[in-house]
Amino acid sequence: MIKIISVGTIKEKYFLQACEEYKKRLSRWVKVEEIEIKEEDENKYFNIETLLEKEADKILKHVKEGEFIIVCDINGIELSSEEFSEILRKNINSSKNITFIIGSSNGLSNEVKRRADLLLSFSKLTFPHQLFRVLLYEQIYRGLSIIYGTKYHK
Amino acid sequence: MIKIISVGTIKEKYFLQACEEYKKRLSRWVKVEEIEIKEEDENKYFNIETLLEKEADKILKHVKEGEFIIVCDINGIELSSEEFSEILRKNINSSKNITFIIGSSNGLSNEVKRRADLLLSFSKLTFPHQLFRVLLYEQIYRGLSIIYGTKYHK
Repeated sequence: MIKIISVGTIKEKYFLQACEEYKKRLSRWVKVEEIEIKEEDENKYFNIETLLEKEADKILKHVKEGEFIIVCDINGIELSSEEFSEILRKNINSSKNITFIIGSSNGLSNEVKRRADLLLSFSKLTFPHQLFRVLLYEQIYRGLSIIYGTKYHK
Repeated sequence: MIKIISVGTIKEKYFLQACEEYKKRLSRWVKVEEIEIKEEDENKYFNIETLLEKEADKILKHVKEGEFIIVCDINGIELSSEEFSEILRKNINSSKNITFIIGSSNGLSNEVKRRADLLLSFSKLTFPHQLFRVLLYEQIYRGLSIIYGTKYHK
């Protein structure tokens, strides 16, 4: 199973539709569970760290022992699509659930990052988290297409 | 003016809508011209190089002297959003048109790459060109938001 924990919701209809399309295509290979954590209100916090700690509590409630945890972070390591696919393959082959964590534009607390088995960066560029979720879905779909040897459906 | 020359069309409605939304937001700052080059049929060519040369002829017809040419290529250099924004700023300040070139999944010929003032990679990961165009639009929008100091509209 693949679990995607994201802070914040997707508001733009076109990004939602893109995610739905990839989720549909993925369904023949893997169950995808999507968990959305409500973004904390910035105005209620004196500093971002406290806000991120609060979000971390909510995120980590959904993380289970034995899962392979990939935290998406701009300062993580960058992989090619083939290398990313290989990470998916290894975990699927050993029947490990894979959990992705995506923060809001405020980022993620160090507590969450410390839980990562892999701190992964998609780009040096910053993207909005709504669009980022589309990128993640597409890359999982691409990765599984490589594993299962099907022609990539563009 | 910003010109985006892409090989291939966007078929997915949600990616088209995302591009349209960013184009609309950009219109207050800059004129964006979009040129789509028809993808050559792979079955008509003995090898990819010949196909890419044919596409290159069509692409380079739209490139004018004096433009700052950014060719998007997975092997190019990676920039942060701030660095990318700085490239936009410099060219806008010196009234230079900026031209982006995006290839199809077959890539781009060396002739096109040689014309680049900047060979730019968005990621080590491969993305479909339809989604890539969304990424480019978003990054131009983000870049100009940084230049003009407006709050980024998420």
